[in-house]
Amino acid sequence: MRNINEDTITQAVLAAMAGCKQPRLRTIMVSLVQHLHSFAREVELTEDEWFKAIQFLTAVGHITDDVRQEFILLSDVLGLSTLVTAQNNAKPAGCTEATVFGPFFVENAPEYALGADIANGAGGEPCHVSGQVRSLDGRPLAGVRMDVWQSDEDGHYDVQRPPTETQPHTHRARGRLRTDAQGRYHFRSILAQPYPIPHDGPVGKMLEALGRHPWRPAHLHFMLEAAGHERLITHVFRDQDRYLDSDAVFGVRSTLIAPWVRHEAGPAPDGSVQERPFWTLHYDFVLNPQ
Amino acid sequence: MRNINEDTITQAVLAAMAGCKQPRLRTIMVSLVQHLHSFAREVELTEDEWFKAIQFLTAVGHITDDVRQEFILLSDVLGLSTLVTAQNNAKPAGCTEATVFGPFFVENAPEYALGADIANGAGGEPCHVSGQVRSLDGRPLAGVRMDVWQSDEDGHYDVQRPPTETQPHTHRARGRLRTDAQGRYHFRSILAQPYPIPHDGPVGKMLEALGRHPWRPAHLHFMLEAAGHERLITHVFRDQDRYLDSDAVFGVRSTLIAPWVRHEAGPAPDGSVQERPFWTLHYDFVLNPQ
Ligand SMILES: [Cu+2]
Ligand SMILES: [Fe+3]
Ligand SMILES: [Fe+3]
Repeated sequence: MRNINEDTITQAVLAAMAGCKQPRLRTIMVSLVQHLHSFAREVELTEDEWFKAIQFLTAVGHITDDVRQEFILLSDVLGLSTLVTAQNNAKPAGCTEATVFGPFFVENAPEYALGADIANGAGGEPCHVSGQVRSLDGRPLAGVRMDVWQSDEDGHYDVQRPPTETQPHTHRARGRLRTDAQGRYHFRSILAQPYPIPHDGPVGKMLEALGRHPWRPAHLHFMLEAAGHERLITHVFRDQDRYLDSDAVFGVRSTLIAPWVRHEAGPAPDGSVQERPFWTLHYDFVLNPQ
Repeated sequence: MRNINEDTITQAVLAAMAGCKQPRLRTIMVSLVQHLHSFAREVELTEDEWFKAIQFLTAVGHITDDVRQEFILLSDVLGLSTLVTAQNNAKPAGCTEATVFGPFFVENAPEYALGADIANGAGGEPCHVSGQVRSLDGRPLAGVRMDVWQSDEDGHYDVQRPPTETQPHTHRARGRLRTDAQGRYHFRSILAQPYPIPHDGPVGKMLEALGRHPWRPAHLHFMLEAAGHERLITHVFRDQDRYLDSDAVFGVRSTLIAPWVRHEAGPAPDGSVQERPFWTLHYDFVLNPQ
């Protein structure tokens, strides 16, 4: 430890952690230090570049607060969130795949009866969503708790915009449902639209410098919880979206892409008669037994 | 990009940066993403662990302000600062080695004449420091700008404690000098003591979890600027310090360790007569011609 130089520093840092009493923490930190140092060596990081990185992380920290999490955004756009999601959610073939959670989930969203309009004032063309939740063996799963959340026609989630006179509800285009005795669900909402991730901060500047856009393809978020099964957190993506091949957070899996079908005004799947054109989406979920 | 999974995610992120117009930025980010993903794969990072990392970085960001830089502290304790310093400051044999800058430098410290007492009220046993600054060929360097800064007997830098009634000066135990026509310098200050890096924040908690202490061996900081030579930022460490083998920020190089010699009250090197015991340090610097 007295002879620290470019060649000995990594070993010195690892040796300093020899007394760590938490084996898992030690494993993680040993690996982190090795890869961090390998990176700095590989690119021959300069002192100026190091300082820019310090300033960048400082800016990420300072824009982060209770409603904005720029570190998660950074993890998302670097593909780390998707990697961690993927390597912790391997499922047997036939199960619905998981994807990133995202920053816009809200605990304890309003509960709705099947068939309800969860838009709750959010703007957009009407969309009827339906499907079935099954176990891997094909058995329909009754009473599955389903959380759904999505952005509105302007690409905003309710949490990004406080209620207004025309949109007085705090919770818009999000809700909780339960599947019926045959595992079926259906609800009304609005058509999902592509949206940019928050890009007025340091992560947005980084994307711009990298020649990347901040857009995500249109999607609905789902979280499904059924007794005896792994919890599933995923999206359903709208087919033909222009951003399916360049999702800013790398969340797209081809099995999660589904057709949203446009219908002229007239009878809807729930028996109602729609006065405006409307959309339908049908998607079935298969959960992994525990 | 529609078929993102554990195996394809890294390549997808790299492909997304293909449009980057800044080649150096792209090189850095390509390497960063690869090493970051390798780390997450190697340790099979879980979603819980990922979230703890997000919370840790958030805490590091929130404690960082104008006078406290927890990201630099984090870089220091992970050995990254030393690695970056070392790989950017390789010098020919015979030159004084560089080490980490640290967070306690202050621009435009007070200027002192050679022989002055730069303690300026900082507490500690008196110490007389002297030496010579030379070029690699042995030629003495006159008029070299020398910044020196150090902690006091309690292990604090002036910037960590506002002035008080008994210590009314803002700048204590720091100053700027110039070498004389023979390249010599000398000044009076106080004996350097070991000190802990700030450890009441997330980095301190991390060190504790890793079984590491926050202490640095006693040292003086120097920055030397001479025409026609590379700027040198370094420390001189006090020999026999108990932390020389476990510096929390990995800054020690054996060539930078020097003896501090204790003397009983009596005549000092500058011709004065000291009424208390005092210390002397002699250290010569060799600068690298540009
Ligand atoms: Cu690596
Ligand atoms: Fe989303
Ligand atoms: Fe220091």
